[in-house]
Amino acid sequence: MHKVTTRIMVNGVMSSDINVMDRGFQYGDGLFETMVIVNGVLPLWEKHWQRLKRGCEILSIELPDKSKVEHDISTFIQDIPRGIIKLIVTRGIGGRGYAVSESLKPEVVLIHSEFPNYPEHNWQEGITARLCCTRLSLQPALAGIKHLNRLEQVLARNEWRDAEIVEGIMLDIQGHVIEGTMTNLFIMKNDKVITPDINQCGVAGVMRETVLDLLEQENIPHEIKTVSQNDLGSADEVFLTNSVIGIWPVMKIDDTVYQVGEVTKTLQNKINKIINHA
Amino acid sequence: MHKVTTRIMVNGVMSSDINVMDRGFQYGDGLFETMVIVNGVLPLWEKHWQRLKRGCEILSIELPDKSKVEHDISTFIQDIPRGIIKLIVTRGIGGRGYAVSESLKPEVVLIHSEFPNYPEHNWQEGITARLCCTRLSLQPALAGIKHLNRLEQVLARNEWRDAEIVEGIMLDIQGHVIEGTMTNLFIMKNDKVITPDINQCGVAGVMRETVLDLLEQENIPHEIKTVSQNDLGSADEVFLTNSVIGIWPVMKIDDTVYQVGEVTKTLQNKINKIINHA
Repeated sequence: MHKVTTRIMVNGVMSSDINVMDRGFQYGDGLFETMVIVNGVLPLWEKHWQRLKRGCEILSIELPDKSKVEHDISTFIQDIPRGIIKLIVTRGIGGRGYAVSESLKPEVVLIHSEFPNYPEHNWQEGITARLCCTRLSLQPALAGIKHLNRLEQVLARNEWRDAEIVEGIMLDIQGHVIEGTMTNLFIMKNDKVITPDINQCGVAGVMRETVLDLLEQENIPHEIKTVSQNDLGSADEVFLTNSVIGIWPVMKIDDTVYQVGEVTKTLQNKINKIINHA
Repeated sequence: MHKVTTRIMVNGVMSSDINVMDRGFQYGDGLFETMVIVNGVLPLWEKHWQRLKRGCEILSIELPDKSKVEHDISTFIQDIPRGIIKLIVTRGIGGRGYAVSESLKPEVVLIHSEFPNYPEHNWQEGITARLCCTRLSLQPALAGIKHLNRLEQVLARNEWRDAEIVEGIMLDIQGHVIEGTMTNLFIMKNDKVITPDINQCGVAGVMRETVLDLLEQENIPHEIKTVSQNDLGSADEVFLTNSVIGIWPVMKIDDTVYQVGEVTKTLQNKINKIINHA
């Protein structure tokens, strides 16, 4: 295994411990953001903050003070030019039971890890993926936000151990194509870029939104809609996105082979500039 | 608020801290059991252990050593004749990402709290409940087990603050009646006791199983099947179960009023003996 140096800050103090009664531990009652550090800053911070804010609204979690969080992050990453920072916000430390007492203060946790040593061919030639057996359940009350209830992703990711397979593609309970275990999915089909609708399940990825913004700016035809397994199988290009990797073309899903297409390359070049991928 | 004395043991040592990298905190990647202590013992321990074991199998979490857990519990509760003990088992302390490295050791957490000061009329006259807006999603891969992804219950329980309302009844995404936020549900209808099927969602409660065993022993007609909102609305008796309360009759769900019936009373008397409720 690649050795990962981890350091952790809890509520502004360097510590690796959280209280057992934290509702994040008890119920997964919280949210997270995984962000890339480029040249000592977080290039997509505003989008991450907006998603966190939306998640806090939906879960009725008190939003932490933004300038305090920004101050903690800048202290935390001051000597880290490049890497990953995970921000976890939980509802706070509560008593027994699901009911929330009104006095809870959110807990803010920062975790640093090194940039993963993904091989360069993931960006160039694309990655090999598989279709997961674990399905995403439909839950409109939680769809889109990045909450701490991630057992579906844990089950899906642990369906395989083959290191050649980099990502698993997940369908929902109805058989629609939604996303990867840690990425959002886009397909190119009939000269249009399509990404699945995530109103019923799935995560509104910050890189997904960045790519959608870019498609809009560049006047590239695109649509958010239901994607069937047939749509995926007959796509001209497939690519995956997240905040850390930017864009990875998909070379193969099980027995279906895809070309790294022009649209994927064009978008990837622009996204690489944002996240400073060489 | 009722003051709750909490004491906590983590992996056999008195402590209130868990590592931030524990997968229970990161992903809700774990299981729990809430158990009642009666005269210094756990009367339903074997059933709790069996459900925990099934949960570990389904999530591929290493099952902790049973005799070690039993030893820790007996040390932990040695001077507590009556109260609640929550056992949490997580997959362990892992690195970044959903993939599980093979070397993870499960974390075992014990939390003691006082027996909640529920009023006696909850058992005698029954409780007032409401139908929740938050629906349970269908996820056969996780149905039945008591895992740490509990955001649906958190959302449902926080739909109301009225202290007169004791429990919320949850439907699944399709509109079938499943359970309460912290209880299982039974109805009496056409001289048969019915409890919802939980193959798609819901928790296989230890008290639910205890009641089903009792119905079998007593030759009381019963069935596990889909329960519609009409079935619930037209039921002759409704009652709720969990390991801590045993059985609470339901007096009212929103505008529908129920009688505390003979079957509920008969079952409650027998269950009260097991959990030593006066």
